[in-house]
Amino acid sequence: MGDLIDQLRTGLPAEAVLTDPDVTASYAADMASFCERGAPAVVVLPRTVEQVRHVMRTATALRVPVVPQGARTGLSGAANAIDGCVVLSLVKMDRVLEIDPVERIAVVEPGVVNAVLSRAVAEHGLYYPPDPSSWEQCTIGGNIGTASGGLCCVKYGVTAEYVLGLDVVLADGRLLTTGRRTAKGVAGYDLTRLFVGSEGSLGIVVRAVLALKPAPPAQLALAAEFPSVAAACEAVRSIMARGHAPSLLELMDATTVRAVNSLTHMGLPETTEALLLAAFDTPAPAADLAAVAELCRAAGATEAVPAEDAAESELLLQARRMSLPALERLRPATMIDDVCVPRSRLAEMLDGTAAIAREHGLTIGVVAHAGDGNTHPVVCFDPADPDETRRARDSFDAIMALGLELGGTITGEHGVGLLKKDWLVREAGPVAMELQRGIKAVFDPLGLLNPGKVLDPGLDPDLGPGEVRDPAAGGAGE
Amino acid sequence: MGDLIDQLRTGLPAEAVLTDPDVTASYAADMASFCERGAPAVVVLPRTVEQVRHVMRTATALRVPVVPQGARTGLSGAANAIDGCVVLSLVKMDRVLEIDPVERIAVVEPGVVNAVLSRAVAEHGLYYPPDPSSWEQCTIGGNIGTASGGLCCVKYGVTAEYVLGLDVVLADGRLLTTGRRTAKGVAGYDLTRLFVGSEGSLGIVVRAVLALKPAPPAQLALAAEFPSVAAACEAVRSIMARGHAPSLLELMDATTVRAVNSLTHMGLPETTEALLLAAFDTPAPAADLAAVAELCRAAGATEAVPAEDAAESELLLQARRMSLPALERLRPATMIDDVCVPRSRLAEMLDGTAAIAREHGLTIGVVAHAGDGNTHPVVCFDPADPDETRRARDSFDAIMALGLELGGTITGEHGVGLLKKDWLVREAGPVAMELQRGIKAVFDPLGLLNPGKVLDPGLDPDLGPGEVRDPAAGGAGE
Repeated sequence: MGDLIDQLRTGLPAEAVLTDPDVTASYAADMASFCERGAPAVVVLPRTVEQVRHVMRTATALRVPVVPQGARTGLSGAANAIDGCVVLSLVKMDRVLEIDPVERIAVVEPGVVNAVLSRAVAEHGLYYPPDPSSWEQCTIGGNIGTASGGLCCVKYGVTAEYVLGLDVVLADGRLLTTGRRTAKGVAGYDLTRLFVGSEGSLGIVVRAVLALKPAPPAQLALAAEFPSVAAACEAVRSIMARGHAPSLLELMDATTVRAVNSLTHMGLPETTEALLLAAFDTPAPAADLAAVAELCRAAGATEAVPAEDAAESELLLQARRMSLPALERLRPATMIDDVCVPRSRLAEMLDGTAAIAREHGLTIGVVAHAGDGNTHPVVCFDPADPDETRRARDSFDAIMALGLELGGTITGEHGVGLLKKDWLVREAGPVAMELQRGIKAVFDPLGLLNPGKVLDPGLDPDLGPGEVRDPAAGGAGE
Repeated sequence: MGDLIDQLRTGLPAEAVLTDPDVTASYAADMASFCERGAPAVVVLPRTVEQVRHVMRTATALRVPVVPQGARTGLSGAANAIDGCVVLSLVKMDRVLEIDPVERIAVVEPGVVNAVLSRAVAEHGLYYPPDPSSWEQCTIGGNIGTASGGLCCVKYGVTAEYVLGLDVVLADGRLLTTGRRTAKGVAGYDLTRLFVGSEGSLGIVVRAVLALKPAPPAQLALAAEFPSVAAACEAVRSIMARGHAPSLLELMDATTVRAVNSLTHMGLPETTEALLLAAFDTPAPAADLAAVAELCRAAGATEAVPAEDAAESELLLQARRMSLPALERLRPATMIDDVCVPRSRLAEMLDGTAAIAREHGLTIGVVAHAGDGNTHPVVCFDPADPDETRRARDSFDAIMALGLELGGTITGEHGVGLLKKDWLVREAGPVAMELQRGIKAVFDPLGLLNPGKVLDPGLDPDLGPGEVRDPAAGGAGE
C-alpha cells in the first residue's frame, strides 16, 4: 500500500491524494441502500487527463482495483468503494470546455454538475435535456455512467441520446477517443454508446461531447386528480395513443401526495388516489393542456386544471420534486426502485406494487415517469428493525420480478451497480451475459475497473488485497 | 460444397436454397463502386428465425463465411459476396409483426422495406423517421446494418435512435435478445446499439423493436438561391444558430441543379451557385419559413421563396430526390461519398470538394444534408477510361482526407463496408481499432460473419475455400 500511495504521488499533486481513513471513508458509498461498501486504500482527485492516465497506469502496474466516482448520488451502489481500492473521484475535473450554438454541442469534463451545464447552455439559448432528480448535485460523468434519465425523458429521451463522443482513459492508461463532434457519424462499431451506462466498468470518461437542443418555450403544466390509479393510467394511455408530446407526464400515488402535503403544507388534494401532472413546452401549451385535460376527464379524472401561468406551473412541479424528500421522512430509510414497463402495463405495475406493500406490511409510495412507464416505488423502512428490513428487501425484489413479468426492465435509468446484479442476469439471460462479460474482458482484461459491479463476478474472495484474478484464467468470460 | 448445400437443405425448403451460378451471381454486389465481389457458393432465403439459425449452425459447422444481405442498395460494398460464401438474404422475412400506438413501437422482421413500414405506421397516426434515398427499396435490416440516415436526420436523427431492441442470431446459431420494448431501459451494456451500424459483422438481425414518433403535420418547404456556396452555408449556420428546427435542410450545388434540370426540365434556376431547401413540419410552418427566408436573404440569397402549399413543397423536394438519378446520367458511372463535417466547416468542405474536382479534371456534383454537415459528393466518371477511373478513385479519397482534416467523419450514414476500411483505421486510430477487433472476436470468434468488411482484415489469402483463420491464433485481435 505504501508503494501504491508513493507511486500515485509521483504524478499527482499532494492535495489530490487523500489517505486519512476518516476522509477516505466519506467516499465509501453512493446513495443506494443494501449495498456493501469497502474501505478505500486511497482517494485521488485528479484535475487533468494526464493525471487520470497516471492513476490508471499505477493501478494496472500494481494490480489495484479502481472505483470511479462522480457526486455519489447514484442509487445502485455502482460508486461504492471496495476494500483496498483506489477511489478515483472526477469531481475536480469540472470545466465546461466549449459551448457551440452552431454545432449544438457542449464539450465538458466529467465532473461538471448537471445543473451547471444546463444553466451554462441556457445562456446560449440551448437546452441540455437530461434532468435527474439530483441534477443540482450529480455530475455529467455520473450521468453517462448510469445513462441517467429524469422528468424530460418522455419527450427528450435519456442521457445516452445526448452523448456524441468521448475521451476515455482505459484500464492500462491508454487514451481512447470515440465518436464525433458532427451531427451524424457511423464509422465503425458504436464504442461511445457502449460506455454510456457501463458504470465505470469499461474505462474512465474524461471528456464528453454532448448534443444540445434549441431551448424550447417555458413549459406549462396541469394537475389532474383521479379516483383510482387505473383511471390515471388509462389517461396516460390515451394521451400517448393520441400522439401528444408532453414535456413531462408524471404520476404521484396517494401515499406520495399525502407525504408531500405533510412536508410542504402545499394543500394537494388528499382524497385523490393518483395525481397526474402533464406539461407542454410547445408554442401553444394551453391548447395542448386543454386537449389533455379533456382526455383526463374522459378517463375519469375528478379535476383536471391547467396552471394559469409559469409560476403556478412551477408550483405543481415543485410538488413532484418534493416527492422523494417527502417519502424519505416517512421512515428512517428508503430504497428506491426503478422498474420500467410498457405504458399499457402501468396500471398493473402500480396495483401490483400496492399489493406487494400490503403483503409485506410496508409503506411504499410510488412516483412514476408515467409517460415512459418508468416507476419509482419508494420502499420505506427502519433499518434498525431486522424483520422490517428483510421485508423491505423482499418487496424490492418482488417489484422487480413483477416488472419483468409485465415485459419491463429492472432499471429504466438508475443502473445496475451492486443492487441489481443478480437481476440483470435474469433480465438479460445467459447469452447476453456471456457477450457482456466478453466485452468487459476486451476493455479490462485484468478486471481492475469497478470490479464486482454491473456484471462482473467481483474479486475472487480467495485473493488478498491488491491481488486480482489471473486474467489468463478467463474469469470474465465464463 | 456438396456438403454445404446438402446440409443447408436439411433445414430450408427447396426454393430457399439457390445454387444456379447465374442466379447466385445476381446477389454478388450492392450499389457501391470500386468494391471487389466474389462468387457465392449458395444464396439462401430463409423465412423464419429457425431457418436463419440453421444456416448459421451449418456455416459454423463447416466453417463457411456468411454475407448477410437486404435489398443491396448499400453504397459501401458491405453486402458484396466473397468467394465460396453463403449469401444470407433476409428479404423474405418481411413481416410487420406489430404496430402499437400506445407504446409507440413497431416490431418488424429485417426484410421489411422502409417505405412499407413508413406507410403502415402512418395508418396509425405514427411516423418512422429514417428515410434513406432508397427508402422504396431498402430494408429495415439493411438500415440497421448501416445505421442509415436520410433527409429527416436534421430534426429526427438516424436509424440508431429508433432501435430499441433486437433479436439476433449469432454466428454459432444461438439466439440473442437485446434491449427492450419499453420507453427506457439501462440494464447492462448497450448491445442493441453495438449491432446498429455493424454491417452484419456481429450477428444476423432477425427481429427489431423500433421506436415511432407521433406523425407530425405535413411539411412545408422553401427554396433559396445563393450566388455562392459560402453564402448558402452561412445561411445554414445562422438557421441552426438561431435555434430553428427544420424537418429538412438540403443543399444542391450548381452542377446538381443543372443535372436535375436536364433530366426533369423542372426549370430550376440555372444561374444559382447553390440551392438551399428548408422545410418545417411544425404547427405553423409558414412563420418558420418566413424567418428562415429572412436569414437566407441576410446571408446573401437572391431569392428565398416559400412554397404556397403542400403540392408546391412536394415539387421542390422532388427536385432534391432526383439529384442522384440526375447526376448518374452525367457520366457512365458514379461514386457517392458521404463525408460529414461540423456545420461551421461546411463551406470549406464544399469549396474544397470543388477544388478537388478541378484538380482531378472531373465532374463532382454535391448534394448535402446541409443541416447536419453531411455532404454527398457524387464523383462522375467513365469506368472504361482507366485514367479517369484512377482520378475518380483519387478524388474520392481526397474528399475523405479533407473531411477528416475539417474535424469530420468519413461516413455520416452509408457505412464502411469494403470501400472505406482503410479510412476507418485513419479516423478511429489504433486504440479504437484494437477494441473494435476485440469486440468482433467476442461475437464472431471464427471470423465467419461478413469477413473482410468494416474492420475485419478479411480471410487469410493462404486459406482455401471454406477454410477460416485459426481462432486460437487471435487473428481478429492484433
